Amino acid sequence: MRLDVFNTRFDLEHARSGALEGSTCVVIDILRASSTITKALAEGASKIHIAGSADEAFALKESLGGEVLLCGERNGLIIPGFDLGNSPLEYNKDSIGGKTLVFASTNGSKTLLACRESYDVIVGGFINLSAVVDELARAESAILVCSGKLGRFSIEDAVCAGMIIDRLSSKRVKIELLSDTAWNAFWLFERFISNPEETLEKTEHAVYLARELGMVEDVAICTAIDLFDVVPRFANGVVTI
Amino acid sequence: MRLDVFNTRFDLEHARSGALEGSTCVVIDILRASSTITKALAEGASKIHIAGSADEAFALKESLGGEVLLCGERNGLIIPGFDLGNSPLEYNKDSIGGKTLVFASTNGSKTLLACRESYDVIVGGFINLSAVVDELARAESAILVCSGKLGRFSIEDAVCAGMIIDRLSSKRVKIELLSDTAWNAFWLFERFISNPEETLEKTEHAVYLARELGMVEDVAICTAIDLFDVVPRFANGVVTI
Repeated sequence: MRLDVFNTRFDLEHARSGALEGSTCVVIDILRASSTITKALAEGASKIHIAGSADEAFALKESLGGEVLLCGERNGLIIPGFDLGNSPLEYNKDSIGGKTLVFASTNGSKTLLACRESYDVIVGGFINLSAVVDELARAESAILVCSGKLGRFSIEDAVCAGMIIDRLSSKRVKIELLSDTAWNAFWLFERFISNPEETLEKTEHAVYLARELGMVEDVAICTAIDLFDVVPRFANGVVTI
Repeated sequence: MRLDVFNTRFDLEHARSGALEGSTCVVIDILRASSTITKALAEGASKIHIAGSADEAFALKESLGGEVLLCGERNGLIIPGFDLGNSPLEYNKDSIGGKTLVFASTNGSKTLLACRESYDVIVGGFINLSAVVDELARAESAILVCSGKLGRFSIEDAVCAGMIIDRLSSKRVKIELLSDTAWNAFWLFERFISNPEETLEKTEHAVYLARELGMVEDVAICTAIDLFDVVPRFANGVVTI
């Protein structure tokens, strides 16, 4: 299997021409879109429409009609006029079971939209790691796209990309890592395994959520491994399982 | 000292507003612009005008008049019509002593131009590491801008950024690392120190230069530490020492 990693959606602009076509693309936004989308679908949301901005989300709700929940965040906080924020804790059977959601977040939803050219786009995180690895093991070409934070590299997304590489290798999948970015993610994962707490402490967005916004429990659920055995799949603007 | 690292010049577009102003900015392009520019000036070139492309270099030579050498590369090879390529081995007293150069390369010269807003821009690499660290130790705010390769992260530039952080810390400079990118560079350097050969072997551009273009000696000189005790400085479009 050929496997590449991108640190942000902006780095995709510098991908080799045609790199996305024919690949399975995993969008990774640990804090928190990957985790929230996965939990929402696992808890029974029927589908999630992805919007690139709050304005797009309002327009999408209008055009869809019927009962639609507006979900997402800007700078970590719920958007005025939205029904739910971007905390996985808010998404449970009572709040979203059987419902249609429209989701817009600062990084994750834009990264999903940037991967539309890919053959197959799935949502991955620590929260559904084994399910994603099982799915990827069948692919010939994989691209792990980290969302990062506001256009820049983030530790937690790269660690997850490295962990996916490690798990694939453990399944005896022969992997050709295609870039310095991919090797860096794998090595960062190796460091994380030896020093998980120290590594997370340096993670700007985890510190922001936990210390500035008091969302300690969010960071805990988003970094917990294999809470759900589902693979959210993005096609035609909608994520489903 | 506040210190940030950027993986590519494109990442600078996502810097906090005003981040470059008032900072000393180190442009790092190990393979090979940092190394070539530093060697050229240490060996006696009088000044190096930086061009963003081959066309700009031809126009600059025309406007400067007098004896001017056209230097640089595209995809690692000398540009047709240029006098010298981008191998530090080509730059010695005989070829460039006392001369004015115009330099255009695939990544490094564009990164220098992207840093023009900064208060102070210097060129750094393994080749002049200690001189750069001595210079930086006096700064209040530093930004290390890796050139990367064709818009993407490169291992060798990030390792050098991490080595600069390590050397500054050893000089008892108190450093506040400002981003996940900065921590990643430092940790990658730590890995490199434990496994230098294995780390370099995964470095796409080193492998390209050594195996595809046969430039093994270039990689050796560009990764050698402290061959020169000079700090090239970029101001008004020109690099001098």
